[in-house]
Amino acid sequence: MACQGGSEITRLRINAMLSRIDHVGIAVRDLDEAIRIYERRLGLRSTGRERLEREGIEIAMIPIGESRIELIMPITPDSRVEKFLQDRGEAVHHVAYATDDVRASLEKAGAAGAQLLDEVARPGAHGTRIGFVHPKSVCGVLTEFVEADGHPGA
Amino acid sequence: MACQGGSEITRLRINAMLSRIDHVGIAVRDLDEAIRIYERRLGLRSTGRERLEREGIEIAMIPIGESRIELIMPITPDSRVEKFLQDRGEAVHHVAYATDDVRASLEKAGAAGAQLLDEVARPGAHGTRIGFVHPKSVCGVLTEFVEADGHPGA
Repeated sequence: MACQGGSEITRLRINAMLSRIDHVGIAVRDLDEAIRIYERRLGLRSTGRERLEREGIEIAMIPIGESRIELIMPITPDSRVEKFLQDRGEAVHHVAYATDDVRASLEKAGAAGAQLLDEVARPGAHGTRIGFVHPKSVCGVLTEFVEADGHPGA
Repeated sequence: MACQGGSEITRLRINAMLSRIDHVGIAVRDLDEAIRIYERRLGLRSTGRERLEREGIEIAMIPIGESRIELIMPITPDSRVEKFLQDRGEAVHHVAYATDDVRASLEKAGAAGAQLLDEVARPGAHGTRIGFVHPKSVCGVLTEFVEADGHPGA
């Protein structure tokens, strides 16, 4: 199954700049165990965890350079991450890019034929604004745009 | 299926520092199409492609901040990436971390109970030294260590 729709891409130019990998989200069964794995086998350090009740997940953040590894454990049976784990097992769940304008990044992707999971930016953790693009539109990879709190475009 | 073996981790301390995400490798069916997707939908820019005949793959590199997206297309039917695509479809294939000492990173992971795919560092592209850790030892994620060319420890 190849990426879909690239040949239908329009030439519309929308200003939106992805500057870095913000984080790589990894779906895990046991968050304590996953933190131990990343700390002891890779020598990284978890700096905090957070329960996102609305999403049915608990996450741990592991900084690495200008990016983070985000370990994600489902805490409710109807969490999307629970379904992901049942379908795929533990694996990379999504890749998130920092953008200076999540609205413009969504518009650019949509104008180029991508299926958006968020038509408009929505609030993320810690005052960020976020938006997701469907994996089938980005070579099988669920793709997130993240705009930091306090940016002039926020 | 949870990460395996974290509780058996030893306390051995080996000096090895992961400094950043070097690249995220994504298995794709059609490299031309995948490059178009990443360029037009995400606004990124591919800076080069390379055929690695021994691995049976062709790759494209897309810089983003201090990291890269590496799009990987199999070019032989017996390529490991071809098998990955048949099993999983297009998806993140591996995550690679820059290290100042790939040998020490492999030793540290191994000492902490990880199953190593490379017991010693081996040559990678562009004069790098690389080594892989089995995905079952890192929460389902095939994990690569990359040591840049010219480092004093190389």
